[in-house]
Amino acid sequence: MLQEQLQQAINNKTKPLGALGALETIALQTGMIQGTVRPVIRHPHIVVFAGDHGIAATGLVNPYPQAVTAQMVLNFLHGGAAINVFTRQHNIELIVVDAGVNHDFTQFPDHPHFIHAKIAQGTHNYLEAPAMSREQANAAIAKGKEIVHQLATKGCNCIGFGEMGIGNTSSASLIMNALTGLSIEACTGRGTGASDEQLQTKIRTLETVAQKHHLKAYDKDAIGLLSKVGGFEIAMMVGAYLQAAEEKMVILVDGFIATAALLIAKELNPVVLDHCIFAHHSGEHGHEKMLQHLEARPLLQLGMRLGEGTGAALAIPLVQSAVNFLCEMASFESAGVEKKSEE
Amino acid sequence: MLQEQLQQAINNKTKPLGALGALETIALQTGMIQGTVRPVIRHPHIVVFAGDHGIAATGLVNPYPQAVTAQMVLNFLHGGAAINVFTRQHNIELIVVDAGVNHDFTQFPDHPHFIHAKIAQGTHNYLEAPAMSREQANAAIAKGKEIVHQLATKGCNCIGFGEMGIGNTSSASLIMNALTGLSIEACTGRGTGASDEQLQTKIRTLETVAQKHHLKAYDKDAIGLLSKVGGFEIAMMVGAYLQAAEEKMVILVDGFIATAALLIAKELNPVVLDHCIFAHHSGEHGHEKMLQHLEARPLLQLGMRLGEGTGAALAIPLVQSAVNFLCEMASFESAGVEKKSEE
Repeated sequence: MLQEQLQQAINNKTKPLGALGALETIALQTGMIQGTVRPVIRHPHIVVFAGDHGIAATGLVNPYPQAVTAQMVLNFLHGGAAINVFTRQHNIELIVVDAGVNHDFTQFPDHPHFIHAKIAQGTHNYLEAPAMSREQANAAIAKGKEIVHQLATKGCNCIGFGEMGIGNTSSASLIMNALTGLSIEACTGRGTGASDEQLQTKIRTLETVAQKHHLKAYDKDAIGLLSKVGGFEIAMMVGAYLQAAEEKMVILVDGFIATAALLIAKELNPVVLDHCIFAHHSGEHGHEKMLQHLEARPLLQLGMRLGEGTGAALAIPLVQSAVNFLCEMASFESAGVEKKSEE
Repeated sequence: MLQEQLQQAINNKTKPLGALGALETIALQTGMIQGTVRPVIRHPHIVVFAGDHGIAATGLVNPYPQAVTAQMVLNFLHGGAAINVFTRQHNIELIVVDAGVNHDFTQFPDHPHFIHAKIAQGTHNYLEAPAMSREQANAAIAKGKEIVHQLATKGCNCIGFGEMGIGNTSSASLIMNALTGLSIEACTGRGTGASDEQLQTKIRTLETVAQKHHLKAYDKDAIGLLSKVGGFEIAMMVGAYLQAAEEKMVILVDGFIATAALLIAKELNPVVLDHCIFAHHSGEHGHEKMLQHLEARPLLQLGMRLGEGTGAALAIPLVQSAVNFLCEMASFESAGVEKKSEE
């Protein structure tokens, strides 16, 4: 009923049928999420969750040192990272969350865009032990929900999630491997820029991890999977997805790691997918197959592989364009434009 | 020298090497066009050229009646079209040019965003005679140059060109056929929404036109080709491209028809291509092969097929993002972020 009303409103705009392509799909979806033929984007946010990974200290999976996670969080707080630039450009509010960085951020007690939500000083090295306990995974999910609920009470109805965590493409690859059944090799890419040799070491390391923790047995136990090989930023993002859908938000899905977190959230509540707009086809190997698994066609294909929510931030103006054409364009009738001759 | 400085500035930003994908390419290109490591986008404009096509009155190539060209120009002037919505959203100035519409617009003598530049009341039907004289083609090119020169003197350094003209995908297909050597069938699509049967009629009609005017002989005579099967909006856009390059502007190339005009402009001065950023991979059949011919990879692939400069307008924020990251992001040194371990 609403769907037909939306489709009719879209078709009556002064353009050939379907001529706004993907923007028409987004207009329809946004209207359905908000339950109206006149959707509105209010107070869009990007929330970047940061966390450290025990595996990163081994140097087996990542060319950058673990300390870069905290250094980049400070860069976010000082406004110098890519996600700062893009959110400033588009008047998107940026929130940075310490989900579990191995660094003391108490020098920023009152930073207006920083949330202290540290579960622990990074995960355990999953070559030796589970990354976190089930209790920690659940606590991170609960915290992610709480953060998004707070934003919803402030009027936000459109949100994208980003992440920062040296080593976290490895968690994403392991999650993808367990939930899609694809090989570790198919799920593993260069992350922040591994060389050929580093990539081979990364693949062998992750194969060892997958076997050690019997990840194949966790395809129906998403929380268990998170606790074995997840990250605090990924777990918190899972809760954020779940709550964003609960709050009827439009959700922008960023790249490889954000999509891996979505795989977990979908296991916990498949309805989340109805709220998701896939923002960007990442340059990270593995993201394409992950998107195919979800039958997703992202709005942007810019070959970026940066994370931080950068793809989501760049796609928000396109969502706004979809809403704008639906709400602002003239109809054939109102503009006095003739329709096709056979109609 | 400048190119190396730009590449170094891009590489020193706090992100993995190459991680901003296509935006890095655009940042480099924009810096090279402006001759600086700190490019700036000033007063971006979309200029929509409108013109009528004699062939449209036959109904052989287009499902919409010819009168829709003028009706849509009025829609532009009243702010109700898709291009109005997108340019408003992004603070892009919109200029509408009557290059040769079969309608009297004298009721808008002082509209601030409308330029009266009518060459004639539409082209001749090229099934019967050349679309225009060589003198008219040259006059349209000269007018396009003049319009862009005026915008340059007002401080505009970033421009996209759109078009409106019922029947003008046919001109674009014929131009493509003559300049790429690809078959009429490969160059011809559904335009504003031809049915299967209408598409077959369109292809047969254009094959007749190509033979009648011996278009193959015009692959080295771009002005001659324009006069045989062009449109006034296309010819004026050719001049606009040439002048925009002359003024060292960044040029956003829209869809199928705008790219066909670029094929002509490139024949007249290949340097134009250095200034072009391809905005959008149109849903119109033929655009993909046209882009391959130009070795172009557009920023957006939204499946739109609307013209009006809509693809160019939606891509301008991405060009702005490219410039912004280059000018605003912290470097590894300034942010105190460590580089890769092997560096």
